Amino acid sequence: MANEWATFGADLHLELRGPRLRAGLMDALREAVRSGRLEAGTRLPSSRSLAADLGMARNTVADAYAELVAEGWLTARQGSGTRVARRAEPRGAGPRRSAARRAAEPRGSAPRHVEARPGIGSAAAPPPRALPRPSTPAHNLKAGTPDLASFPRAEWLKAYRRAFTAAPNEAFGYGDPRGRIELRTVLAEYLARARGVYARPERIVVCAGFVHGLMLIGQVLRSRGVRDVAIESYGLGLHAGLLTGAGLGIPVLPFDERGTLVEESGPLGSAGAVLMTAAHQFPLGGALPPDRRAQVVDWARASGGFVLEDDYDGEFRYDRQPVGALQGLDPERVVYLGTASKSLAPGLRLAWMVLPESLVGEVVAAKGVVDWVSSAPDQLAFAEFLGSGAYDRHVRAMRLRYRRRRDQLVAAVAAHSPETRVSGIAAGLHAVLALPPGTEQEVLRAAAWNGLAVQGVNEFRRPTVPPTLDGLVVGYGTPPDSAWQSALQTLCRVLPPTPGGTEADTW
Amino acid sequence: MANEWATFGADLHLELRGPRLRAGLMDALREAVRSGRLEAGTRLPSSRSLAADLGMARNTVADAYAELVAEGWLTARQGSGTRVARRAEPRGAGPRRSAARRAAEPRGSAPRHVEARPGIGSAAAPPPRALPRPSTPAHNLKAGTPDLASFPRAEWLKAYRRAFTAAPNEAFGYGDPRGRIELRTVLAEYLARARGVYARPERIVVCAGFVHGLMLIGQVLRSRGVRDVAIESYGLGLHAGLLTGAGLGIPVLPFDERGTLVEESGPLGSAGAVLMTAAHQFPLGGALPPDRRAQVVDWARASGGFVLEDDYDGEFRYDRQPVGALQGLDPERVVYLGTASKSLAPGLRLAWMVLPESLVGEVVAAKGVVDWVSSAPDQLAFAEFLGSGAYDRHVRAMRLRYRRRRDQLVAAVAAHSPETRVSGIAAGLHAVLALPPGTEQEVLRAAAWNGLAVQGVNEFRRPTVPPTLDGLVVGYGTPPDSAWQSALQTLCRVLPPTPGGTEADTW
Repeated sequence: MANEWATFGADLHLELRGPRLRAGLMDALREAVRSGRLEAGTRLPSSRSLAADLGMARNTVADAYAELVAEGWLTARQGSGTRVARRAEPRGAGPRRSAARRAAEPRGSAPRHVEARPGIGSAAAPPPRALPRPSTPAHNLKAGTPDLASFPRAEWLKAYRRAFTAAPNEAFGYGDPRGRIELRTVLAEYLARARGVYARPERIVVCAGFVHGLMLIGQVLRSRGVRDVAIESYGLGLHAGLLTGAGLGIPVLPFDERGTLVEESGPLGSAGAVLMTAAHQFPLGGALPPDRRAQVVDWARASGGFVLEDDYDGEFRYDRQPVGALQGLDPERVVYLGTASKSLAPGLRLAWMVLPESLVGEVVAAKGVVDWVSSAPDQLAFAEFLGSGAYDRHVRAMRLRYRRRRDQLVAAVAAHSPETRVSGIAAGLHAVLALPPGTEQEVLRAAAWNGLAVQGVNEFRRPTVPPTLDGLVVGYGTPPDSAWQSALQTLCRVLPPTPGGTEADTW
Repeated sequence: MANEWATFGADLHLELRGPRLRAGLMDALREAVRSGRLEAGTRLPSSRSLAADLGMARNTVADAYAELVAEGWLTARQGSGTRVARRAEPRGAGPRRSAARRAAEPRGSAPRHVEARPGIGSAAAPPPRALPRPSTPAHNLKAGTPDLASFPRAEWLKAYRRAFTAAPNEAFGYGDPRGRIELRTVLAEYLARARGVYARPERIVVCAGFVHGLMLIGQVLRSRGVRDVAIESYGLGLHAGLLTGAGLGIPVLPFDERGTLVEESGPLGSAGAVLMTAAHQFPLGGALPPDRRAQVVDWARASGGFVLEDDYDGEFRYDRQPVGALQGLDPERVVYLGTASKSLAPGLRLAWMVLPESLVGEVVAAKGVVDWVSSAPDQLAFAEFLGSGAYDRHVRAMRLRYRRRRDQLVAAVAAHSPETRVSGIAAGLHAVLALPPGTEQEVLRAAAWNGLAVQGVNEFRRPTVPPTLDGLVVGYGTPPDSAWQSALQTLCRVLPPTPGGTEADTW
């Protein structure tokens, strides 16, 4: 039940803000009772603690509780707290609903609470089950989300207003499935300048997120007769699932201490494409070495295959020149996939593909049948935001901010757990903390126990890859500034005090 | 070539507005040359006439021509006009590109120019081919798009700003795949009030358009083992194609003078679902009679099937009370699909489904895997727009405006072509003008000849349905006010002066 509560609290946290706070909370509570997620008799957290978890005023929660008591959903008795009332016919939709939710987990996230994973031993005993656990993680260091509190609201609103006012009437109609020409024009210029992408507006397709783009590419490749798309040893299960969902096999590329192996004699030999995070391996953090970049492009040329380049955080590189996109090496064999989800915010649902000419027609056809997806005003606003330089200014500001956090992370870990190696720090919004072999589960349990949401590298390991690394994937971009220091302190508290280290700390 | 030009001009018209007009035009021209759509030696229209077609300043076009001449794409010689230069290696991507474009045609549209259709005879000779044809239709009465010039810009911008300013930080993150709770809450209230829909926020899924919703439902039905989804005799090929694309069969329901036949002994008998425009058949215009509404819901109950209710223009009904949504009859067996594409604008990409409880989990899972699709700020803006009453005000104003146009259409047709029956006029943004048997093609050719874009009912007839009706589908909502009267006059000019009429004019 503790686990259920945590999930429930986290769900509420996602949904319950804005003008209709109390009504929304009441809906969510009713729904949880109706679906059986909250069983009759369950004691609810105090209004004070739920309010704290949800970042609401305590009165909002107390009022919602009171109304639900009045409606008969809850009961309140002195000394026994607020509980779910006993009612007829609780609907048993719980399991299906949660399955759907799991399937619908956003990119970059994973189960909110860590469960023991068969095949990975841990010597540490879990905390005794009888004790209460914190209901919602108080600290969030999961990778995959930028600092949302830093969204440049005023600048975005200005761009939206300006673009909206200038928009021609036809912008409100059905449009080009590739996206607005205004946006594709400035994107082409930006990507060439910032990422070394060879981009022409007519080869760009605006989509609603990386996942949308990957789905379209997967469909097109499948209908071309491609059977396998090779993937890296570590990555997001969501992406792998999308490819298998499109009917594609996903042979896994092996890796060594320098990164992913892209030899033709390996799984690439039978693949029609390969999905890679070449500039910044997710989650391990390295850049594909130059010789392997050339090698994978050579493979694509020789075999007629495609490299699908997931450039999810290419804007953020701290210590040297950014690693240019692989796509520049051969625009006819590399599909470049970029997104505003890390550089700006996932809630905008703006991403883009730069396609080899040979794929444009098929991808547009696949996209057109589904829908046009991104609203025209948003596309125009983003075009204005990019074209006016506001995007560059934002990225520069965030790069400084994330870099400062990264430096604080490295310094704090060095102080509290000197033997813990931090790697993957040259770029991006996350780092990997190498743990002594066999201790990942233990550390994750301690993190959960301390109210810290964080993931282990083995959550990103493909099922067929043997577990050889233990470590934490720390998303230092995720918390707002106000929560960052306490999250970092909590992280340090759960790190092993004794020396650790793994073979793969050069990643 | 004349045809090619027309299409080309129309494409440009869709794309080429906004801040980078000339650059966009140049891109489009380069692309047309590169792809082979414009062959070497082809003479381009004069800058004056292309500017008129595209609604651009003549200088913009002349400058673009001059730059492309300088770049070597075009040549200009005194007395011979501007032509496509001869270049090495024109890429032969033309045919595939156009196939992709056709596949990607927006909902409610159809081939921009009418071609002879095998199986429908026409006694009239086409205009001699040697004469030049108008390049872009000057008048647009195709159904499927509302009057975009009436988009309530100031009100929308106000709602956007208000919602955006009040949005919590988490709105910029990954959200609930069902859509924002704020929007689902006000939608539930609105749909219950305006359309008689039994809607609870937790059963609503916000999607990026009707087509997106239908795709999700199609996937879910297919994975449940449904093999056939029955469709009406007339409708959009895009929707039928989406269902077959999902692996579903599409048996066609027969019809009589009262509308679609929904007897269990017919094609419904083997179907797992049926797609219907029950409130306002598209394109023929009738409402499904009450006994058949009950009948189709009874079928769904008895067979465990689903009715997919495409309520695309339910807000617009002129002479009596709106026909409430079928969904109210049985929310557990009817999937309600609504959209802002007709009531507001397609460019917003906002639509919604109200689902039977048994389908929520599966649809959310299917949607979540694809992507979250609608941007959170847009959803919040629409929630504010709905909640503030701005949507109701807009719909009321548009209802008056469309009704006035409808009355003008009926009066003009009565004056110019007294025997032409106008039907399907009680609701929506389009009407059907019945034509004498065998004359549809002739009238469509005359329309094209007069620069009027309009479609015949047979363009919406399913291929297996025998051609028994001839008529025009007139989208009187499409043109802006400034263009409406001239479009109407052109329409009257092409109608048969002699008496006509068909069996189905009660539709």
